[in-house]
Amino acid sequence: MSLVTVGSVAFDALETPFGKTDKIIGGAATYITLSASYFTEKNNLVAVVGDDFPQSMIDILESHGVDTQGLEIRKGEKTFFWSGKYHNDMNTRDTVEVQLNVMGDFDPKIPDAYQDCQYLMLGNTSPTVQRLVIERLHNRPKLIVLDTMNLWIEIANPDLMELLKLVDVLVVNDEEARQLTREYSLVRAAAKIREMGPNTVIIKKGEHGALLFQGDQIFFAPALPLEEVFDPTGAGDTFAGGFIGYLAQTDDSSFDNMKRAIIYGSAMASFCVEKFGAERIMNLTQEEIDARVREFIKLSAFGLV
Amino acid sequence: MSLVTVGSVAFDALETPFGKTDKIIGGAATYITLSASYFTEKNNLVAVVGDDFPQSMIDILESHGVDTQGLEIRKGEKTFFWSGKYHNDMNTRDTVEVQLNVMGDFDPKIPDAYQDCQYLMLGNTSPTVQRLVIERLHNRPKLIVLDTMNLWIEIANPDLMELLKLVDVLVVNDEEARQLTREYSLVRAAAKIREMGPNTVIIKKGEHGALLFQGDQIFFAPALPLEEVFDPTGAGDTFAGGFIGYLAQTDDSSFDNMKRAIIYGSAMASFCVEKFGAERIMNLTQEEIDARVREFIKLSAFGLV
Repeated sequence: MSLVTVGSVAFDALETPFGKTDKIIGGAATYITLSASYFTEKNNLVAVVGDDFPQSMIDILESHGVDTQGLEIRKGEKTFFWSGKYHNDMNTRDTVEVQLNVMGDFDPKIPDAYQDCQYLMLGNTSPTVQRLVIERLHNRPKLIVLDTMNLWIEIANPDLMELLKLVDVLVVNDEEARQLTREYSLVRAAAKIREMGPNTVIIKKGEHGALLFQGDQIFFAPALPLEEVFDPTGAGDTFAGGFIGYLAQTDDSSFDNMKRAIIYGSAMASFCVEKFGAERIMNLTQEEIDARVREFIKLSAFGLV
Repeated sequence: MSLVTVGSVAFDALETPFGKTDKIIGGAATYITLSASYFTEKNNLVAVVGDDFPQSMIDILESHGVDTQGLEIRKGEKTFFWSGKYHNDMNTRDTVEVQLNVMGDFDPKIPDAYQDCQYLMLGNTSPTVQRLVIERLHNRPKLIVLDTMNLWIEIANPDLMELLKLVDVLVVNDEEARQLTREYSLVRAAAKIREMGPNTVIIKKGEHGALLFQGDQIFFAPALPLEEVFDPTGAGDTFAGGFIGYLAQTDDSSFDNMKRAIIYGSAMASFCVEKFGAERIMNLTQEEIDARVREFIKLSAFGLV
């Protein structure tokens, strides 16, 4: 089924204990659409860049089947830029610099060809923009998944609370879940978030896996234990892309299928951290993904029935 | 099969955000033997207490089938005492007071009736005492499982390194694994620990579950997501008791059976944290344990083959 993804397409400059990059391609929607491209063929992007954004990168997205009709290129303006530096534990990072540029007044355009969208992924950007995308779709998609971040919880809380009423699934990390609800227990945090609107809550715990909450059901997906995390940038977006890509491909949003979607999302995220930026998820084969999913099965099956 | 457990039997005084206790019964071997008692009938304790230790508590251990012939009661001396205070996140704690008392020169006695021991659990105490227990058993047990803590890694490192050569399984938490190996990655830490001696390594991650490493195989056991952790004291020992109790009961130390043993250990630990001290694991039914294990199955099964 058709997927629409909105979010940032950006330049990132990264520094980790393993090295640093110049400006490379980043942004939530880049990671999400690349990751989803391994699952769904109708993969539509809504984003904005400046005319400094390289055509070669647009070509890479298109070669992955991403429809870029909804990628606005603003003449004479610059692409969103973020630079960050990871601490030695790779779990925490500092933002070194942010240049909003074209994201400062992002006005999302929905091409007519996207109007049949059944699955909508609201990648991390302001709640105002995320809401505009919902409003500009003529029909409500079957499933709306929302990602957000600490910044919006702090500076756009009322907008975010209104938006939460409109979505089916919220994907956040553990810190964001706690910040949003002021509950330390993730079980309680998920329950409070479900009172805010989303029927389903996914809490990402990085190297500790992810939790899926729906009704009184809980599912726990492990993360693959890795010798080395080279660069965690985009892992959460890659997870979300694999998750919604799998749901769009299978067109089944049951709890049981969401479990499988989370395993695929986790597998995609485990690739993402192996190289800088989106490099690894630009170059995956179906065989590699299937083999990685088999590792997850081995990792968590224990043969009690 | 017959299990011997060595470790502390102690008084604890605990303070958590939910309340505080006067002196209650604690100690690694208390939690381990109580937890193992739900699995194995030959459950032998090696420990030392002072004559201030209440007979009523010895009666409780015996009512759980724990053989206390190896529990030395020293006249005119006092039982080991520890008091600790948990921080608000319940993941970190400060030791408020330690009185070694009888543990200062613990000289473990192995009753003849324990000499047929097939499974040996070296609960947390000094590496010197743990080694003495191995030496005083006439035959090497089939499986020796070792627990230790940051204190011994710091102050008795050479003794601990010698001891590691003698054991099959090391059970530590993530911080201890990192401290012991100076590796941040738990995959690398486990590999280094296996070079130190143990064939199998279990790394406990508290609310994030546990990892089992053997050869190039990894298994990840989730922790049950809880609304509230009332008191984490003894959860790690309870986990170890369930793990080795299940192995002793089934008399199967294969990797596949260790996976199941870890699930049972995790289920036992999830009960432990529900009340202060060992109260909850003194009062469990087989039905409760079976139901909890079914929760773990639901929590982690995702139906991909």
